[in-house]
Amino acid sequence: MVLDRVNSPEDLKQLSLEELQALAEEIRSEIIRVTAQNGGHLASSLGAVELILALHRVFHSPKDRILFDVGHQAYAHKLVTGRKDRFHTLRQEGGISGFTKVSESEHDAITAGHASTSLAQALGMALARDLLGEDYHVVAVIGDGALTGGMALAALNKIGELQKRMLIILNDNEMSISENVGALNKYFKELQIRKWVQDMEKLGRSVLERISPQLFGLVDRAKEAAKLILHQENPFYAWGLRYIGPVDGHDLKGLMHILEHLKALEGPTLLHVVTKKGKGYKVAEADPIYWHGPPGFDPKKPEKVSKGYSWSQAFGDAVTELAHREPRLFVITPAMREGSGLVRYSLEHPERYLDVGICEDVAVTTAAGLALRGMKPIVAIYSTFLQRAYDQVIHDVAIENLPVVFAIDRAGIVGADGATHHGVFDIAYLRTVPNLQIAAPKDALELRAMLQKALELGGPVAIRYPRDNVERAPEGVWPEIPWGKWEVVKEGTEVYILAFGKTLRYALEAAGDDPRVGVVNARFLKPLDREMLRELARYKLLTVEDHQRMGGFGSAVLEALNEMGLKPEVKVLGLPDRFFEHGTIPSLHRQAGIDAEGIRKALAEMGLALVHERA
Amino acid sequence: MVLDRVNSPEDLKQLSLEELQALAEEIRSEIIRVTAQNGGHLASSLGAVELILALHRVFHSPKDRILFDVGHQAYAHKLVTGRKDRFHTLRQEGGISGFTKVSESEHDAITAGHASTSLAQALGMALARDLLGEDYHVVAVIGDGALTGGMALAALNKIGELQKRMLIILNDNEMSISENVGALNKYFKELQIRKWVQDMEKLGRSVLERISPQLFGLVDRAKEAAKLILHQENPFYAWGLRYIGPVDGHDLKGLMHILEHLKALEGPTLLHVVTKKGKGYKVAEADPIYWHGPPGFDPKKPEKVSKGYSWSQAFGDAVTELAHREPRLFVITPAMREGSGLVRYSLEHPERYLDVGICEDVAVTTAAGLALRGMKPIVAIYSTFLQRAYDQVIHDVAIENLPVVFAIDRAGIVGADGATHHGVFDIAYLRTVPNLQIAAPKDALELRAMLQKALELGGPVAIRYPRDNVERAPEGVWPEIPWGKWEVVKEGTEVYILAFGKTLRYALEAAGDDPRVGVVNARFLKPLDREMLRELARYKLLTVEDHQRMGGFGSAVLEALNEMGLKPEVKVLGLPDRFFEHGTIPSLHRQAGIDAEGIRKALAEMGLALVHERA
Repeated sequence: MVLDRVNSPEDLKQLSLEELQALAEEIRSEIIRVTAQNGGHLASSLGAVELILALHRVFHSPKDRILFDVGHQAYAHKLVTGRKDRFHTLRQEGGISGFTKVSESEHDAITAGHASTSLAQALGMALARDLLGEDYHVVAVIGDGALTGGMALAALNKIGELQKRMLIILNDNEMSISENVGALNKYFKELQIRKWVQDMEKLGRSVLERISPQLFGLVDRAKEAAKLILHQENPFYAWGLRYIGPVDGHDLKGLMHILEHLKALEGPTLLHVVTKKGKGYKVAEADPIYWHGPPGFDPKKPEKVSKGYSWSQAFGDAVTELAHREPRLFVITPAMREGSGLVRYSLEHPERYLDVGICEDVAVTTAAGLALRGMKPIVAIYSTFLQRAYDQVIHDVAIENLPVVFAIDRAGIVGADGATHHGVFDIAYLRTVPNLQIAAPKDALELRAMLQKALELGGPVAIRYPRDNVERAPEGVWPEIPWGKWEVVKEGTEVYILAFGKTLRYALEAAGDDPRVGVVNARFLKPLDREMLRELARYKLLTVEDHQRMGGFGSAVLEALNEMGLKPEVKVLGLPDRFFEHGTIPSLHRQAGIDAEGIRKALAEMGLALVHERA
Repeated sequence: MVLDRVNSPEDLKQLSLEELQALAEEIRSEIIRVTAQNGGHLASSLGAVELILALHRVFHSPKDRILFDVGHQAYAHKLVTGRKDRFHTLRQEGGISGFTKVSESEHDAITAGHASTSLAQALGMALARDLLGEDYHVVAVIGDGALTGGMALAALNKIGELQKRMLIILNDNEMSISENVGALNKYFKELQIRKWVQDMEKLGRSVLERISPQLFGLVDRAKEAAKLILHQENPFYAWGLRYIGPVDGHDLKGLMHILEHLKALEGPTLLHVVTKKGKGYKVAEADPIYWHGPPGFDPKKPEKVSKGYSWSQAFGDAVTELAHREPRLFVITPAMREGSGLVRYSLEHPERYLDVGICEDVAVTTAAGLALRGMKPIVAIYSTFLQRAYDQVIHDVAIENLPVVFAIDRAGIVGADGATHHGVFDIAYLRTVPNLQIAAPKDALELRAMLQKALELGGPVAIRYPRDNVERAPEGVWPEIPWGKWEVVKEGTEVYILAFGKTLRYALEAAGDDPRVGVVNARFLKPLDREMLRELARYKLLTVEDHQRMGGFGSAVLEALNEMGLKPEVKVLGLPDRFFEHGTIPSLHRQAGIDAEGIRKALAEMGLALVHERA
């Protein structure tokens, strides 16, 4: 195995082209093997293998900084930067992260997970480098999907102005996670189709002066393989960037050749590299959407597996049905059709479905525009990504009390994706916003009831649900629940557990059949059910939520009790004030003390140890 | 007066060109008169007068929707849409808003205040229109500054793809509030300079087929006045937009002519209009930065007035000094050099100063990049605008505990700018973020102490201060304060007022010399001074903050007390759960019950009526 000899990127410098090509295949096998075991971002990582090898061959990490936007395509990078022995722990608790992570390796230039951040970070690094009189390269690798994100475009604008030395690699695989959308991507496509060299003589600037002999050489070659285009009249030119490409992202030799030359250039350069998502693994090439981030599979007989019926699917089925009855319903996703359970909806209601691409702010504000003109938009979004549209929730939706429903998926701990993806801040940042109501269903039926009612309320409503499976609700059944009212699920005589959302299950488990312990499905956070809270304040109270303790549901309960002048003993369970890394959801919940065991422990601290424990 | 005859936009349809031109001058006078009285967005509104008249002449508001991005350039729009009789109440309590506001007039298509939202909203409206089978025009007017915002660029990308019928007016005055930055703006400039018609024959599409005779007519005229360019090879083309311009934004006749023709086109069209900020008012033309949003002035003898010494200036002076001692300090602003008090800093430390343009997310993430490479960046940002970079604070800064300082200006109620600009959510959305520390100084000296210390801590720190004046701190004085420790400003025997930030002044005023009432400068919110809080819990406690009551400082105090098992009587003063419109800061504070009077009232409710009140 060539990989056995690669312990750091410097070892790549000793390898022949043939050895590098063999290494690429070994890396592919390893990625497939470990992803089959642990689940993970398979297709994008397979697509970036040659690009990553070429980068590490030509540049000198960690001195040179190589930034991977989103960070989930960087498995090959992990394998050649001293982490091959731990690679089997990918995404597992205590193991290495599925993304690049500054605190994990000196070779990880940024901590990533959300898209479109790398260009601004690269700009900051290039500024720091020049100010501190240092000398290294800054290379940002960004996908065509991530480049449609507003902050990437805005950063590009600034990069073009400041003309700092940096290399941007546009890793163009024509995909986000779903298929790509947006006019720019059509344009990239067009660039790929026009396979000719245009207006070369017009260029007449440093690019040509310095590397023209090589480029012309490449162009010759390109006619067979590398498909190089030098193209001045494109948006990157308007942005003040030197644009080179597209080049074949799986041609190791060609990539190393051109990177070697680009290294010498001043100012910002964009190299447009075309890769194939899932490259080298047939099933993944054929269906890169499913194989973007599959759960475990049999590498010899890779098949799509059903992950069970998820909250996302429950949401998707509910809105699909609702939309048949409610002609004004409209669903928007920021590039998360599959993840948000919207495939069926998008097929049955294509005209009332919009994927805006990876720009959550645009998703929310487009919804505001729809709501202003008579539609009933639902923004289907992960909790962690709604953080990227916070101002739009306030400024474009809440101030005018517009009827926009936020279907907040992946709320709470999400597991293997780790710190960048846990949706554990939404209650705190949303409940302080006037006009916005917040609810969390206990099951798929309650989700349906809440969605249906939310569309009638005439103002903004956030409904949060976790990354988890849920029992399927029967089609056509639309229960009604009293809006704003909590539900006593189990009576108690000494303490009541107030559970918001998913933690209700843990609460019931912890309470068991102990007659002293009551359990409440505290499904509405805003408005809070003060009437019931007032009654329950005669007992001890234990609040539980899958969210930061600071500013969350428990905090809202404390505020309400204080305003009502009530002083029961209250214990607040939620996530402590730190970031949680990746791990299984049950394990992280246990660590945080919000699972059944944690609740039992809290009950014991409140003097309610279980009978057998007291014995 | 022509204006006397204009009660709705329809009245414009009856006017001759000469009357319209006279009306433009009358409107200018009225804008100057009222802005001189009330303060307001003078220069941008003067620049858009002809454009607004032409739009209302050609289109039919409110049926047609005219969206003004940011909304502060729309005074002429307010004057011709039935609000001239109330225009003198501009920005005053109970009067009309300084921005467009849906709830104020059927002619205000969006509620605005923050930049770059109009394109996504226009897209949503065009989608709704077509789905509901309606027929009206959607016209978005967006400045060249706002167009550099990421969400505008991302929305453009989607607009180009969907090809819905809409008109985008690029109101190009080469300014944000500060001078514009970014490569695109350089490009706009270039477009203006090349005053020739290029590749007309290449165009060969609907634009030319439908309006070519007129365009050629315009081109003839342009050689003297309108400076028309038909320009295909520009970034908007790559985005799938029909691009027309630049045209003279003060040539009423030319504007009406071209708008009339553009009305008939399908798909998205971008009309590039060049206007002059401050047009028609010499001082404002000469210095559009100062006259962007001046306080009141004498219209006959317009002079810059000193508004006193502000917190912004105190911050600017402090960082200017600090940067002389700390070579790694770096300051970033998202297009708010003047507002953030950074003019002096930008002159003394130009190489360590960066204005990224109106893209707050890029500001924060560029700071992360700087911090990752050894610099000590400070992001100077208004509270309301930090909402636009919330995810970047979490994802790019806090997760890796990077040393980025957030200097949060305009925290709390901001007064005349109203609901879109009050900075009243930051405590709630920030305090739930791990690793981030939060402080608020009582005066300029404490601000200096906090800034200096924050730069040494090695992690993210947010320092919030209000829109207000403050006593100037002597240069060169750098006091030290114990980090994380509150300060007892006045001892008391029965109750302690815990004041966070600006409200300390109100607390002292309310306490007077009442020996029963103590006052604490609770300057650190995170970490909270639990040690002192534990001691003070022997007394009644009254918390006061210039922030939403929900999730704010008082909420943090309740959480801490509950965790420590302490149950003193606590009253929480803060803003109630609704949006506040514009008004003076003291008046809004009075309404919210957080000023001295409100505090006295709260004390009385806690049984501590002042002695003379009890008598």
